[in-house]
Amino acid sequence: MTVPNHFELLGTDGAARTGRLTTPHGVVRTPAFMPVGTAGAMKGLHWREVRDAGADIVLGNTYHLMLRPGAERIAALGGLQRFTTWNGPMLTDSGGFQVMSLAQLRKVNEQAVTFRSHIDGAALELSPERAIEVQRLLGSDIAMQLDECVRLPADHADIERAMQLSLRWAERCKRAFETAPDGYMLFGIVQGGDVPELRHDSARGLIDIGFHGYAIGGLAVGEPQEVMLAMIEEAAPILPADRPRYLMGVGTPEDILEAVARGIDMFDCVMPTRNGRHGLAFTQYGPINLRNAKHADDPRPLDEESDWPSTRNYSRAYLHHLVKSSETLGAMLLSEINTAYYQRLMRDIRAAIAAGRFEEFRLRTREAWERGDLPPR
Amino acid sequence: MTVPNHFELLGTDGAARTGRLTTPHGVVRTPAFMPVGTAGAMKGLHWREVRDAGADIVLGNTYHLMLRPGAERIAALGGLQRFTTWNGPMLTDSGGFQVMSLAQLRKVNEQAVTFRSHIDGAALELSPERAIEVQRLLGSDIAMQLDECVRLPADHADIERAMQLSLRWAERCKRAFETAPDGYMLFGIVQGGDVPELRHDSARGLIDIGFHGYAIGGLAVGEPQEVMLAMIEEAAPILPADRPRYLMGVGTPEDILEAVARGIDMFDCVMPTRNGRHGLAFTQYGPINLRNAKHADDPRPLDEESDWPSTRNYSRAYLHHLVKSSETLGAMLLSEINTAYYQRLMRDIRAAIAAGRFEEFRLRTREAWERGDLPPR
Repeated sequence: MTVPNHFELLGTDGAARTGRLTTPHGVVRTPAFMPVGTAGAMKGLHWREVRDAGADIVLGNTYHLMLRPGAERIAALGGLQRFTTWNGPMLTDSGGFQVMSLAQLRKVNEQAVTFRSHIDGAALELSPERAIEVQRLLGSDIAMQLDECVRLPADHADIERAMQLSLRWAERCKRAFETAPDGYMLFGIVQGGDVPELRHDSARGLIDIGFHGYAIGGLAVGEPQEVMLAMIEEAAPILPADRPRYLMGVGTPEDILEAVARGIDMFDCVMPTRNGRHGLAFTQYGPINLRNAKHADDPRPLDEESDWPSTRNYSRAYLHHLVKSSETLGAMLLSEINTAYYQRLMRDIRAAIAAGRFEEFRLRTREAWERGDLPPR
Repeated sequence: MTVPNHFELLGTDGAARTGRLTTPHGVVRTPAFMPVGTAGAMKGLHWREVRDAGADIVLGNTYHLMLRPGAERIAALGGLQRFTTWNGPMLTDSGGFQVMSLAQLRKVNEQAVTFRSHIDGAALELSPERAIEVQRLLGSDIAMQLDECVRLPADHADIERAMQLSLRWAERCKRAFETAPDGYMLFGIVQGGDVPELRHDSARGLIDIGFHGYAIGGLAVGEPQEVMLAMIEEAAPILPADRPRYLMGVGTPEDILEAVARGIDMFDCVMPTRNGRHGLAFTQYGPINLRNAKHADDPRPLDEESDWPSTRNYSRAYLHHLVKSSETLGAMLLSEINTAYYQRLMRDIRAAIAAGRFEEFRLRTREAWERGDLPPR
């Protein structure tokens, strides 16, 4: 049976693509960056700011939400979109990645992964079937298959075992998803570490099963950027051109630009908010560290050309003071400024692809980052 | 020389008063509650939310700001109103209260208080003259005299000594303030602990010196509410009816209602934001503790009759989840909800006084608080 397609490719420029993905809670313009609302909230941001920044879709973490407040509870409260008041498209991960990174006493077998909650130590099991059930209870517009992600570097045998297990789990996830209502989507995840042949095998195996879209997982887990880009170059061309492609957990603005150039449509990362909490601002001049003492007396805004009010209206001196004083407002403003910067980058990327000027845009953007920040006054 | 008066009394109802205080950065409607922007920021709030909530004036803490980022630096950056982007009226305390509560190795003598910074241990001195100089550098619309505040209970002799010292410092502050530009104000502070005669002496001494307005200090420092209200009853009637009266560091919604009934015009307190960070919401039903498990499955908002969107639009279940998960958004929303509640209370108080129905309003408001929260569903 053919899997329905909710993705419309609007234009390409080289390998770069722009399109629209229609979900039950609205349309997502691609390439899209999904801000991460870990446990049903964006850290330091109001939902209206996420919307105003231009995000069409956000990501929720199944692992966090299944532990607290619980998937059944969120279902009874009308689903994650309504619970959070976001009311727009949401993608959830499968929980697998965070079971690997956060949970205690983790054991993977053919059937499932068992672990203990990092909150209260409760013994829990996440099977492919339960991962789908939880995501359907949450009401995710886009659910992800359960997979096993191996941290790099790793042995070939380990990478292959995890990739094959992920393929078998992909099939079980697909079956568990069969009764989902029309319009909801399930993405398979290409694994295979840094081994080209395993990436090929994984992609082909997933295509045989058939998904609404395809993710590339197991990257941005410690490998150099060249390896990440090489693996995208191995996997992306194999994936069906008419389906969305999502690079999980990526990344810096430069990672995104380079991955778009290689045919990726969707991204997610905690970097805008996490780095914001640590005093780092993303700008057209590259990253700016507001902890640096050179900002203490600087009345200039981060970027007076920005169309985002907070980027234009707060002085570097004030942001520096807030960061040095650990004032919540510092984390709030920089998280908001970074979220807006990422969304602005995606908007510019989409426009450049649509206009057939992506390569020029990519070079100009990289040049501005490399030129760096304004000279001190 | 007569001290100019920038306060206009618009109406009274019993001892309760409503008026307007004109500052260089705008008009303050009284009775007014000043949210506390400790170190140049409201904890968990954007400035636009403070404005939208209806606050006309905010308070900055001289002690925090003189340590970091420094008064001279803020002056060079255009003053505290511009530095923070608040751009509205600001009152600063003298720094004395926080020297007493936060600084190390504090020593008071006739000349000044010496102490060590709680941030880096630097040895510092705060004299009446320096307290005024710092506040003028910050550009406060309303500066406060340096005083010595005694924590209650305390010996009569201690209270009297501190009160007399505060009077001598009041005089020095007044002299130091003489060159301030027109429109900027200096308030004296009535001390005297819980001793009526000392409160009288303090108030009369300050009136002899002459200030733009008068504060009542040294309350809400551990004494029962009856003592606080009794001391207001001793001091307020002595103070000039045509000058604003400010009760420092107060308080709960009930404290405010009762103090307004006794002729107070201005308040400040960290309670809306501090209690918000701890999961407590102020509502027309009294305080609601969002940590309580009974909210976990409750889809109802805190108060569907509220005119503040966040009070109406987020479910108790979501707020409970955010608080239990220590999500920043929980602190942000409850700080905002509480700030809006306090400002709504002040607006209603002003309207009730203007309409000559303050006593009826006071009883009705207290009844609603005492009835308590809605029954569980």
